[in-house]
Amino acid sequence: MEIELFIAQSEGVWKSMRSSHSLAFQQFEQILSEIKIESINIDSTEMKNFIERNKEIDKNKIVSPFKIHWEAESDWEQDNNDAISSGTSLLIPIKISSKNGLILRTLGYAEPIQAFSNYYFLEDGTFVLKTEYNQTIAEEKIWFVSKNVRCRSSLLKSSKNQGILQTSFASEVRKLNLNKKK
Amino acid sequence: MEIELFIAQSEGVWKSMRSSHSLAFQQFEQILSEIKIESINIDSTEMKNFIERNKEIDKNKIVSPFKIHWEAESDWEQDNNDAISSGTSLLIPIKISSKNGLILRTLGYAEPIQAFSNYYFLEDGTFVLKTEYNQTIAEEKIWFVSKNVRCRSSLLKSSKNQGILQTSFASEVRKLNLNKKK
Repeated sequence: MEIELFIAQSEGVWKSMRSSHSLAFQQFEQILSEIKIESINIDSTEMKNFIERNKEIDKNKIVSPFKIHWEAESDWEQDNNDAISSGTSLLIPIKISSKNGLILRTLGYAEPIQAFSNYYFLEDGTFVLKTEYNQTIAEEKIWFVSKNVRCRSSLLKSSKNQGILQTSFASEVRKLNLNKKK
Repeated sequence: MEIELFIAQSEGVWKSMRSSHSLAFQQFEQILSEIKIESINIDSTEMKNFIERNKEIDKNKIVSPFKIHWEAESDWEQDNNDAISSGTSLLIPIKISSKNGLILRTLGYAEPIQAFSNYYFLEDGTFVLKTEYNQTIAEEKIWFVSKNVRCRSSLLKSSKNQGILQTSFASEVRKLNLNKKK
C-alpha cells in the first residue's frame, strides 16, 4: 500500500459510527457522523494559502493533498440536545519512502491546532498515523475491510506521562463514491 | 512476537469496555465485562479430556494452552434488566512457524461451537485471528498499547456473501496480574 492509492480509495462520502472509551471513568461515548474526503488540486487557492503560510515545505514533495469535512452528532449531551460539531481540515502528505512519510493538517484531531503526523503502512495495508500535540499524543490506525468499509482505531495518550486517556473505534461505510473513474 | 510471549503477556484479569456496531441498522451496543485469562497445564484433566475428544491433534505440537472466562453485561436490554452472560473456553494453540499457527477453541466467539482459527502476527506485534464458523467468518486483531492495556477489534462477515454484519472494538485494562514472576 502507498499513500496515493490509500487516499484514492478513501475518497468519497462515509457514514461513520464511532465509539470512544474513557478508560479511567469506564465511560462510553457514541458518535454518528458523515465524513467527506476529497482530493484537492495543488494549484487551488487553499493549497496556495497553505504553502504561503508554511514556507519550509518543499512543494515538490507533496503528494495527493486532500480535504476532510465532518459533521458529527454525539450522545454525550442529553437526548434532544445532542451535541453537533463540524469542521474541515486540509491534509498534506509528504512522502519519504513508499511506506512512510509525514502528513500536515491545518486542524488536528486531538487538539484544534495545525499538526504534523508521521505515517507508515503495515504489511497488511493498515495505515498508521502518529501525531504529537501540545498535551497529547494520538496514534491512529485505518484499514479497509472491504472496498466500501473502513475501520479506524485511535489512542490518546498524555504527553506528560504516556498515560492512556482514551481509545476510540470507528466503522465507516461508504455512502457515495466521488471518484468513479479511478 | 510469538504465541508463547503473547499469551504470557495476556494472562491476568482484565476489565473490558466493548462497543459493537451493527452496520446495516446503525445500532451501537455497549458491553462491560471482566475477562480472566490463565494458562493451563497440558497434563490437566481439562486438557486430557480435550485431547481425548480430538485424537487427530498431535499433542507435541501444542504450545501454551490457556483458558478464558468472561462475565459480560450488555446495555442491549433495558435498564435494570441488563443482559448478563458468562462462559469459559479452552484455547489450544498449535504452532506452525514463529509467526503463525492454529488455535482450537472449545467454544467459539461468533457461534457456540468448537472452532478452528488461523492466527498470525503482524510486524508490529498485532495478533490476527481468522475463524470460519457455520454461518459467519470472524476476523479479530488484538494488540497491546501498553503493558496493561490491550485493544481488540473484530469483524463478523457472512459466510454466504462475505457481507459485513458487525464490527466491534474492546479496550481491555489489566486489573490483576496472575503471573508476577514472568
